[in-house]
Amino acid sequence: MAEADLAALLLTTEPEVRYFTGYLTRFWESPTRPWFLIVPAAGKPIAVIPTIGAALMGQAWIDDIRTWRAPDLDDDGVFLLIDTLNEVAKGGRVAIPHGHETHVRMPHASLTRIGEAVGLVSDEGIMRSLRMVKTDAEIAKVAEACAIAGRAFARVPEIADAGTSLEHIFRQFQMLCLEEGADWVPYLAGGAGQGGYGDVISPATDAPLAKGDVLMLDTGLVHDGYFCDYDRNWSVGPASTQVKDAFARLITAVDVAFDTAKPGVTAADLYHAMHAVLSNGAGDTDAGRLGHGLGMSLTEWPSLIPRDDTVLETGMILTLEPGIAVGDKILVHEENIVITENGARFLSPRSGRELPVL
Amino acid sequence: MAEADLAALLLTTEPEVRYFTGYLTRFWESPTRPWFLIVPAAGKPIAVIPTIGAALMGQAWIDDIRTWRAPDLDDDGVFLLIDTLNEVAKGGRVAIPHGHETHVRMPHASLTRIGEAVGLVSDEGIMRSLRMVKTDAEIAKVAEACAIAGRAFARVPEIADAGTSLEHIFRQFQMLCLEEGADWVPYLAGGAGQGGYGDVISPATDAPLAKGDVLMLDTGLVHDGYFCDYDRNWSVGPASTQVKDAFARLITAVDVAFDTAKPGVTAADLYHAMHAVLSNGAGDTDAGRLGHGLGMSLTEWPSLIPRDDTVLETGMILTLEPGIAVGDKILVHEENIVITENGARFLSPRSGRELPVL
Repeated sequence: MAEADLAALLLTTEPEVRYFTGYLTRFWESPTRPWFLIVPAAGKPIAVIPTIGAALMGQAWIDDIRTWRAPDLDDDGVFLLIDTLNEVAKGGRVAIPHGHETHVRMPHASLTRIGEAVGLVSDEGIMRSLRMVKTDAEIAKVAEACAIAGRAFARVPEIADAGTSLEHIFRQFQMLCLEEGADWVPYLAGGAGQGGYGDVISPATDAPLAKGDVLMLDTGLVHDGYFCDYDRNWSVGPASTQVKDAFARLITAVDVAFDTAKPGVTAADLYHAMHAVLSNGAGDTDAGRLGHGLGMSLTEWPSLIPRDDTVLETGMILTLEPGIAVGDKILVHEENIVITENGARFLSPRSGRELPVL
Repeated sequence: MAEADLAALLLTTEPEVRYFTGYLTRFWESPTRPWFLIVPAAGKPIAVIPTIGAALMGQAWIDDIRTWRAPDLDDDGVFLLIDTLNEVAKGGRVAIPHGHETHVRMPHASLTRIGEAVGLVSDEGIMRSLRMVKTDAEIAKVAEACAIAGRAFARVPEIADAGTSLEHIFRQFQMLCLEEGADWVPYLAGGAGQGGYGDVISPATDAPLAKGDVLMLDTGLVHDGYFCDYDRNWSVGPASTQVKDAFARLITAVDVAFDTAKPGVTAADLYHAMHAVLSNGAGDTDAGRLGHGLGMSLTEWPSLIPRDDTVLETGMILTLEPGIAVGDKILVHEENIVITENGARFLSPRSGRELPVL
């Protein structure tokens, strides 16, 4: 912050506030109330939050908690925040995260007023660089989330077969995740269709699985505030040679990226490593990237794309998510890894080369 | 929009985009990609979205879907959006929701650039007034979500008793919600403590329930894209007279608000009706309001507070959520209602006056 000449950071989203405070609550699901955390250049963070959050924030290491009775239609914390920013920043520059993977969580009217009062500049990627490299404690939490999902994925044959609807499978799979130890299951997507699926973000339908379908489930479950994010594929009955080969190529792409991943190489290097395997006669999936960061959010920086020159460091957690077109369908496989001094280590239980059959 | 002299609305959040398109996906959990929907003053909405969403958006009634390959570190859809806004608005005013319960979901750098290019004004509450009054189809979905939660709440004695930890109960209760038909369980909060709890937004701990505790679970589960939001309380073993009386007073507060609720009265009227019952010797809970709107989001306009003069209309769905202080603890009870021509109707299964005992 000193290098960037910043007097204070203003943070407004769930992972940003939690990163500095440990403040963990699902209450962010409610869009009603804004929450503010000020991180000064020196000293402890200051929370400027609705009264309803004071008791829980009081359990964190934050001493200075300033509250207002939200929702307040006349002034929903804006003047309290401006006063506090003026007191903390003393005319110095106040920064907000403002690039990729971020947004400012408050009404636009409030943001405009705060911007006019104190000026708001870019944090120049400070939050990005902090959150992108994980501590050992953070890595352990993601590893545990991955292990929980791994146990749930291993039990999918209990809940899915020809004749079962995707809607049923989605519901039952979330129950398996919880039974295996997930705190909650913020993300589940998937697909099923003959020889592949149409996309990887659709909700489930009540159409029953049929022989020849490929089923894919992709989950982001949470353990102690940290996500996993990976998928598994199954063939319903024997798969075609085309599907088997495509799946094996996805595994090869992951292997190549895994072998490439180590401190000093870039996110783009991992993209190119996978792309070289996938592009050999195969089409594109429209996903836009072949993996991404992971941690307190389902998806984080960096992106595995040609333009992302982020240099990998020990402690970064990434997904490797190659996709491949098979006719008018797609197949996507995803694993989670962490960068160590000696290369990458799998956090998800590494898949075999053969597509499992239900 | 004509009255407000608006040429187009620019929408960026999940419920806003889904309101006009039916675009239902849990992929919004990923903060990576911005999504834009333009609603012109005349004609169908236009989607400006990442390629990964094109297949699913193509299943909606939207014909004009413009895509870019996100994430793009140089231009993440901003110039495509600006071009489209210029084409649609033809120099007319472009509005965004900017008041309470809203935010703009895109990086601040993008928002600034778009604001400079096309100007962005307030939608003057248009989205608020549209979303606040529900159709019969929407009411049926919330009613079904409430019914699912009701069946899960009825089964809590199967999973909770003295000695059971709140963490275990949270996990098991989410499984019950899924088993009873929830698509997913975005929100669960609760508390447990001797004679009440400290707040209503904390995550679960591994502390076991003890005789004399009051357990509260508050869930926002989703059925077909629509939420319920209500809670239930139980006493672990017999409750004290003080707790029984406090709970009965919460039920009285709900009854009084229910009898008051009809078209023409205000959100503030419901607040005052409940407050008169609660304030008779009782303390405050710091929640900031005594209920709120509900629908595509866990919480929506209006707020049951003294300053909210929103006039109730047929089709509005509300939570009644009185809270009361009991010593240094609180108790909160919540029900969901819909406003009809003839008064209010319960969507949640109306609670009795006696606190149930586990």
